Amino acid sequence: MDRLSGGGFQALRALLDGPFAGLFGGMHLLPFYYPIDGSDAGFDPIDHTQPDPRLGSWSDLRELARGKDLMADLIVNHMSSRSPQFEDFRKNGDASRYADLFLTYGHVFPKGATEADLLQIYRIRPSLPFTAMKYDDGIERLLWTTFTSAQIDINVSSDSGRSYLVQILKQFREAGVRAIRLDAAGFAIKKAGTRCFMIQETFEFISGLTAQAHALDIEVLVEMHGQYEDQIQLARRVDWVYDFALPPLVLHALYAQDAAPLKKWLTMSPRNAVTVLDTHDGIGVIDAGGLLSSAQIGSIVETIHRRSNDESRQASGEAASNLDVSQVNCTFYDALGRQDAEYRIARSLQFFSPGVPQVYYVGLLGGTNDMDLLRRTKEGRDINRHHYTAQEVDLEVQRPAVRALFELIRFRNAHPAFAGDFRLLPCMNHQIAIEWRDKEHWARLSVDLKARSSAIDASPGVRS
Amino acid sequence: MDRLSGGGFQALRALLDGPFAGLFGGMHLLPFYYPIDGSDAGFDPIDHTQPDPRLGSWSDLRELARGKDLMADLIVNHMSSRSPQFEDFRKNGDASRYADLFLTYGHVFPKGATEADLLQIYRIRPSLPFTAMKYDDGIERLLWTTFTSAQIDINVSSDSGRSYLVQILKQFREAGVRAIRLDAAGFAIKKAGTRCFMIQETFEFISGLTAQAHALDIEVLVEMHGQYEDQIQLARRVDWVYDFALPPLVLHALYAQDAAPLKKWLTMSPRNAVTVLDTHDGIGVIDAGGLLSSAQIGSIVETIHRRSNDESRQASGEAASNLDVSQVNCTFYDALGRQDAEYRIARSLQFFSPGVPQVYYVGLLGGTNDMDLLRRTKEGRDINRHHYTAQEVDLEVQRPAVRALFELIRFRNAHPAFAGDFRLLPCMNHQIAIEWRDKEHWARLSVDLKARSSAIDASPGVRS
Repeated sequence: MDRLSGGGFQALRALLDGPFAGLFGGMHLLPFYYPIDGSDAGFDPIDHTQPDPRLGSWSDLRELARGKDLMADLIVNHMSSRSPQFEDFRKNGDASRYADLFLTYGHVFPKGATEADLLQIYRIRPSLPFTAMKYDDGIERLLWTTFTSAQIDINVSSDSGRSYLVQILKQFREAGVRAIRLDAAGFAIKKAGTRCFMIQETFEFISGLTAQAHALDIEVLVEMHGQYEDQIQLARRVDWVYDFALPPLVLHALYAQDAAPLKKWLTMSPRNAVTVLDTHDGIGVIDAGGLLSSAQIGSIVETIHRRSNDESRQASGEAASNLDVSQVNCTFYDALGRQDAEYRIARSLQFFSPGVPQVYYVGLLGGTNDMDLLRRTKEGRDINRHHYTAQEVDLEVQRPAVRALFELIRFRNAHPAFAGDFRLLPCMNHQIAIEWRDKEHWARLSVDLKARSSAIDASPGVRS
Repeated sequence: MDRLSGGGFQALRALLDGPFAGLFGGMHLLPFYYPIDGSDAGFDPIDHTQPDPRLGSWSDLRELARGKDLMADLIVNHMSSRSPQFEDFRKNGDASRYADLFLTYGHVFPKGATEADLLQIYRIRPSLPFTAMKYDDGIERLLWTTFTSAQIDINVSSDSGRSYLVQILKQFREAGVRAIRLDAAGFAIKKAGTRCFMIQETFEFISGLTAQAHALDIEVLVEMHGQYEDQIQLARRVDWVYDFALPPLVLHALYAQDAAPLKKWLTMSPRNAVTVLDTHDGIGVIDAGGLLSSAQIGSIVETIHRRSNDESRQASGEAASNLDVSQVNCTFYDALGRQDAEYRIARSLQFFSPGVPQVYYVGLLGGTNDMDLLRRTKEGRDINRHHYTAQEVDLEVQRPAVRALFELIRFRNAHPAFAGDFRLLPCMNHQIAIEWRDKEHWARLSVDLKARSSAIDASPGVRS
């Protein structure tokens, strides 16, 4: 939010009441806890129960959320090494009341781990997810650190872990948060001899946490990257999942003029999905695994690089200390070579796909890669995390591509057909036709990928 | 060399015959193998047997070495992940003829490793020294990578490891190399249940390699950071060691006006030492461990930061992806707050300490921190790795501090007293007095740390 409004909760409210009026029924704020500028842009909270004072207070947040469905992140996997809890553990060792809040190597592997055990762990980087730290008692411990050494993994199965999470949920409810996003939930449970990612126990943990959230009238969106079958399985157990397969499938459709894999996916994709094309992370190409071949996925990666004039290459892979080597960092607009027509098709496909569409702030403004920020921080994902001034926002919203997107958002919000049933209409592989219908109301998208054209037809309907 | 001369072997020869004429009897070239600009500034060779063509050929090197004792690095611990040997292993897996040249986790820990096993490993960073890589056969392996994931550790105990090292030694001899520097030798041997650093087997490995070098008329300098007792023990087994305790002890003397720890060290320091104040790495403060208290070492670190206006802080510790968190990155001249008088005292103390003095090129020119380079690369050690143009060199050598150092170097080279015996003269703790004597020849250094003054007296002697 600070990168869009240049300010805090109040500045964002001004944007929502000004240039973005009428566009959003809800919003997802990325982590706004103290501090928002740690080692992982807010995903390493020191105090998960306090907004960063530079953004405002809980009451400013309540004001921002007025009339909107506010979603906040619950960071279940880890907390900052500078949190009071971890500092207490580091100071007092086993005598700390937070000693069971954090996860060590020995905790998971009391008898040791073989090369096979360690290689089985699902990792986002080629190094092992452990960090050694010397405590004030002189004893060194080997902590489980899935992401960075400044993010210490929480033992969510311990009493301390459970009460830590419940305490945050209660604080959220008081602040008017209507939904939580479980960040990196797939990594939450570690068990020796497994891949420590989305195992049976992980699903059970998520189910339990979801029940606790429901008791507080909070819905749950689970953020998980992975194969599409996992996503379908997960969707049965929680309120909401992301449709992370959509971005690579839309890119494949546009690049290869081949809508077949996308159409196959839309017949089975979870209906309780939040659809995205872009997020604060990279474009997760492996999320289309199983729907696209390895060669097709490789071709997507190379085409993104080519269309972005190799800017994405500088921000991805082993360059730019990329957090997750399976994600390509690039704005979605640049991934399409800044072609307004293709961007319009991509967003239309997203808005006609089953689920609730979410638009990332850079994509909302048809943003281009921020190579300056990337050079300054050498953090690959910063290519798609531009800091907008209010003046920039005022200029960007005048662009035809952005005005077209706003129009699409308003149409999707207002037309009653989307409350009804989704249906794919038969057509050729280089075409895609989608219809939504609720009684007499209907809306239809027709795309021709070869002609790079799209059209929306609809019944004259206004939501009551 | 490319950072001093802006060119290769020939450009460096021009400097040695020009502005630096008469100063150096020998020289240590940092790794000049292909490529000099990998992920660790030449310490990750792809081909250890070829000079980088941008510097010149073996015959250019022979010409450079004419009349000088040339020392070259033998990188025993690892090679580049892009070396033909490792690429062959990655392609062919266990069928590769280099399969036993590299070290895996399972090789050292066939039955697995406990938290205690892993914590016992001496590490320069808080993460574990392993990198997972998927091979072309689809099998993932966990490689031992002490430094970076682009530097794969060699199994020096295997037949392939031994023949790799001998082949390089033979190439060195042909090229006129008179001495080798064993880089990171302390890490060469890994054994389950030990710290995998400077264990008994490491000493045996170094002894064996030294014997092989001697058979080719090559002397051996072993680079090892650590406690001073290890350094003394090592010095008994090899031709040369570094006196890495000297830099922090000299800093302590100047900062705290307390020469007692330095004097204690000089009574027992190895006589077969290469003395340094600065190198291409940081200032290794832990090398004075046991001679200085933890509080004194902490005070040195803080004083370096203060004297350098916090520039060193930006390049050290967990900032700036510092390779070794126990080293402070700063030029020695900046560590002394750019005080010419103190720099002169420091260099005088080095040149009167037992051993062969070595001067790093930045220190030779009294160089200051290169904050631009640090900002560009975010590599902490680059603060002390300025790229000089020939014009800069011509200007720097006019500075009084640099001229004084050149005079000191020439004096140390020429005066016959230094062929004789070293002796500390009794004085107060804030003073230090050193005498060298060989029959009628004598040279004496008197330093008063409180007055920040030093004087050199000597018999009128010219080496025959």
